[in-house]
Amino acid sequence: MTAPEKAQWQINAEKAQAYRDASMQEVAKLFPSPEDGNKFLTGALPDPLPTNVTPLTKDYLTPLDYAIIETDPLVLLEELASKKVSAVQAAGAYIRAGVLGQRLLNNVTEFLPAMALERAQFLDDYLAKNGKTIGPLHGLPFSLKDHIALKGHRNNYSLTALVDNVTDHTCVIVDIVKNAGAVFYQRTVQPQFLMHLESSSNVYGVAKNPFNTTLTCGGSSGGEAAALGFHSAVIGLGTDIGGSIRGPASMQGVYGFKPSVNRLPSGDVYNAVTGSESILGTIGPMGRTLAIVELVTKVILDARPWKARPELIAKPWAPEAVLAGKKTVRVGVLHSDGVVNPQPPVARALKEVEAKLKAAGVVGDIELEIVPFTPYKHDEAWRIISSLYFEDGGAASIAFLRKTGEPDMELTKFIMTENENVRPLSLEDLWGLNREKHAYRNAYNTHWAASGIDFLISPAGPGAAQPHGTTRYWGYTSQWNLLDYPGVVFPVTTVDAEKDLPFSAADYTPLNATDKDYFERYTPEVYADAPIALQIVAQHSEDEEVIEYLKLVEQVLAN
Amino acid sequence: MTAPEKAQWQINAEKAQAYRDASMQEVAKLFPSPEDGNKFLTGALPDPLPTNVTPLTKDYLTPLDYAIIETDPLVLLEELASKKVSAVQAAGAYIRAGVLGQRLLNNVTEFLPAMALERAQFLDDYLAKNGKTIGPLHGLPFSLKDHIALKGHRNNYSLTALVDNVTDHTCVIVDIVKNAGAVFYQRTVQPQFLMHLESSSNVYGVAKNPFNTTLTCGGSSGGEAAALGFHSAVIGLGTDIGGSIRGPASMQGVYGFKPSVNRLPSGDVYNAVTGSESILGTIGPMGRTLAIVELVTKVILDARPWKARPELIAKPWAPEAVLAGKKTVRVGVLHSDGVVNPQPPVARALKEVEAKLKAAGVVGDIELEIVPFTPYKHDEAWRIISSLYFEDGGAASIAFLRKTGEPDMELTKFIMTENENVRPLSLEDLWGLNREKHAYRNAYNTHWAASGIDFLISPAGPGAAQPHGTTRYWGYTSQWNLLDYPGVVFPVTTVDAEKDLPFSAADYTPLNATDKDYFERYTPEVYADAPIALQIVAQHSEDEEVIEYLKLVEQVLAN
Repeated sequence: MTAPEKAQWQINAEKAQAYRDASMQEVAKLFPSPEDGNKFLTGALPDPLPTNVTPLTKDYLTPLDYAIIETDPLVLLEELASKKVSAVQAAGAYIRAGVLGQRLLNNVTEFLPAMALERAQFLDDYLAKNGKTIGPLHGLPFSLKDHIALKGHRNNYSLTALVDNVTDHTCVIVDIVKNAGAVFYQRTVQPQFLMHLESSSNVYGVAKNPFNTTLTCGGSSGGEAAALGFHSAVIGLGTDIGGSIRGPASMQGVYGFKPSVNRLPSGDVYNAVTGSESILGTIGPMGRTLAIVELVTKVILDARPWKARPELIAKPWAPEAVLAGKKTVRVGVLHSDGVVNPQPPVARALKEVEAKLKAAGVVGDIELEIVPFTPYKHDEAWRIISSLYFEDGGAASIAFLRKTGEPDMELTKFIMTENENVRPLSLEDLWGLNREKHAYRNAYNTHWAASGIDFLISPAGPGAAQPHGTTRYWGYTSQWNLLDYPGVVFPVTTVDAEKDLPFSAADYTPLNATDKDYFERYTPEVYADAPIALQIVAQHSEDEEVIEYLKLVEQVLAN
Repeated sequence: MTAPEKAQWQINAEKAQAYRDASMQEVAKLFPSPEDGNKFLTGALPDPLPTNVTPLTKDYLTPLDYAIIETDPLVLLEELASKKVSAVQAAGAYIRAGVLGQRLLNNVTEFLPAMALERAQFLDDYLAKNGKTIGPLHGLPFSLKDHIALKGHRNNYSLTALVDNVTDHTCVIVDIVKNAGAVFYQRTVQPQFLMHLESSSNVYGVAKNPFNTTLTCGGSSGGEAAALGFHSAVIGLGTDIGGSIRGPASMQGVYGFKPSVNRLPSGDVYNAVTGSESILGTIGPMGRTLAIVELVTKVILDARPWKARPELIAKPWAPEAVLAGKKTVRVGVLHSDGVVNPQPPVARALKEVEAKLKAAGVVGDIELEIVPFTPYKHDEAWRIISSLYFEDGGAASIAFLRKTGEPDMELTKFIMTENENVRPLSLEDLWGLNREKHAYRNAYNTHWAASGIDFLISPAGPGAAQPHGTTRYWGYTSQWNLLDYPGVVFPVTTVDAEKDLPFSAADYTPLNATDKDYFERYTPEVYADAPIALQIVAQHSEDEEVIEYLKLVEQVLAN
């Protein structure tokens, strides 16, 4: 007897990993750092590895690379514009950091050294020749979530069945930021079907959180977020239909902006299953500062993407209108959605931010008023949205798994194959759920209006990043997808073993099994070093609002 | 044997008509014009009636009423603001004209004399007491299409099964224009299911075109358009999912603005069948001048309706940005969509407008460039949209007919029950059609971009208003619903027996049966006195654009 043959899905996964690994080797050829023997790629890693791997960049990168990746993004843009740093240097620093990140976090699907080198060199030549930058993102290293299409590159949707799928187009959003000066150098991992709030898959394995590798980096834009947390990225793009930008950004303590649907161009990303329209995804920047997130948003909208993508709203970026003439801003704080209570670190973050806002009272000319806000049937929102994610009961998705014998991952079972809300919908079912969706949106609108708030400070999830495979609550982000309210997450603190003691079991009555799970799982030791973020939410289409309101909040927090 | 009993649908129809008739009698009580014996209501009509009944207002209304209804809308607003005309006088003039219109055109479902009198008196008192108007529409008589909900009033959706359906809410858009000063005085007819481009129903019978009562007033907002053409309305609101604002506006030679979906609040109009989302309708003003149409649009958006309706885009009305910094505007002219050729009067209107634009070359500082534009698979667009109008094959709609034994009207057979594109869709069918819809939108976007045009001058239909029951081509309007491109129709000319000779049958090869039908039907005599309008179209979400570009065109046409 011969040894059992490998399953097709394993063969395909190895192929995708080999493809990625070859691109890592190519980095060392095109972007070598010979002075340290390419330590970023070949240096032996500490054994055992620390759970917090973020300090390793200092040891495994050259001082110049380290200085570049530690530079504030807007400062880096200034240094690129003034030729203090060349585009080739910046791309080199980030792609080398990216390779190191991949070795530690398993968060990359492909490096793009040839593309990065060619573009960076072009930009350096352009600046030398013309004496000016090509655009506001001149030379900025830019990371991309894998399913944002690049012509001629693969889009496997984190499915082993699709590892040979080559895309025939480049997304409009990619061309826009490229034309503004962005340099693409890596593409990052996602979970199976892009439908977990983690980023592990059978194609690439487990993707980890740089602050604590026993925890998830989140998902589905978790590869991006891990890179941002590790500083192997300064800015990137993610997509979000249930929390996929905001969840992972929050878990790495970076900024993630989910605008309303059809504000930024996402209609041409690669999706394996298409035709479903009752819940739509959106695309947005994820970055290390709010300023770079807003700059990229503005760059995209300044390019009038609605001329190129027919699904978009023709609406320039106009943040100045938000606070014009406004004397009072009313803030709600969502301490719990009534379904799953935040774990202690998030509960503390909410209280601290609320206390600081109350204590401040004003920011500049604007009076801040904290207004009570109670959740309105968030469990109902989850029932509706999770019933609509897979209108066909998941049949089209499952078919991809069956093609190669790829197993359903545990979080796939959670969201799809074992989810009681997921079933093949008849047209009448679909109409009924759409009616429920609209009724819920109307009711929430009335509820919000009655509260009088301008914006809400919400958790971005029930806790910090969770241990791998356990992220089973989407409500703090998917709530705003169902409503199509924009949201932006921002870092507040990190888990603190002294401040963030577990709630007393004697006093705590779990709300339901999921709440019990999050409650029982919590001890601060599990979440050591994990960042804690919160989320600013405003009403549908108030995209500028969430950014401007976050600026107010950060002004207060900075004092 | 007794005489055959009346069918339930006939009993219900008579009930609805009696309700309407009672409201007509109420007009004479609350808004009498005793000096002429209430001629508007009781005066014997000419026998035989002329086909063009528009001159009759002069004979059947008092000189003051006639003067008021002939006043330009913005002038009327000035006269209301300066107390030259009271709100009660204006409401009286229009409601009396409305009753006369109903007698001649059969275009009204209900008069609102008590509501109108109370509101008009309140506005007069307000102005007297405060020395200023209540808002920019102070005292303006305002007509409403029947399915725009008014709490406590009936919404029968032009179905006999629903004649007793009382609505539980008032549309946000109604409250907004009311708060700005509008006075509602009549509600107007629609066709069965609101899904004909005419406005006849089994509830109320045939609605007629005031310029030629042998022709339709169009639909589904045909009652509004007939009133505007007859001058028993100066401004109103219609809805449009395939041409229902633009078709009837064009057939009466008035202005009708269909904005992109979710720009103006239409999510709370009364619809008998809900839950289908693949093609969405929109709401917009219909009026006698472009200025009043734009003013009402601005009034609605100035009220920030997106705070009240969660489906809306938060985007103020900002027309000034359209031409800012623009030196050249490129115009395409759609002489035919390649499916049904325009009849001679529309063909002439297109040529005349194109020639005038070419001859002008510039408007103000803007250079006008006429650019060739060819249609892109408009037949395909019709196949897709008509397959999606009734996702359930019409089952939910037909059920309403069966309830009372109400017959399918001929145009219902055309659009639904005998339409080869209409079938009950499985979820997979629906996904497939949604994919086709998006692919078509993408392809059209590419096609439009390649042409380089800023806007398109399109027919609003293949001809003038058609003889009753024959309006079987939607393509010139539904095309832009599928694409969700905004459109505004504007009057250009009237059918001219000398200029608009039939095309030579010897030279004409019909494109298909529908084209043959429109070709063979045409002789100028059939369309005597009928207005001819055209349509300005811009890309998705460019709502301000269509209005600003129409202003340019009208500047040229005025010279």
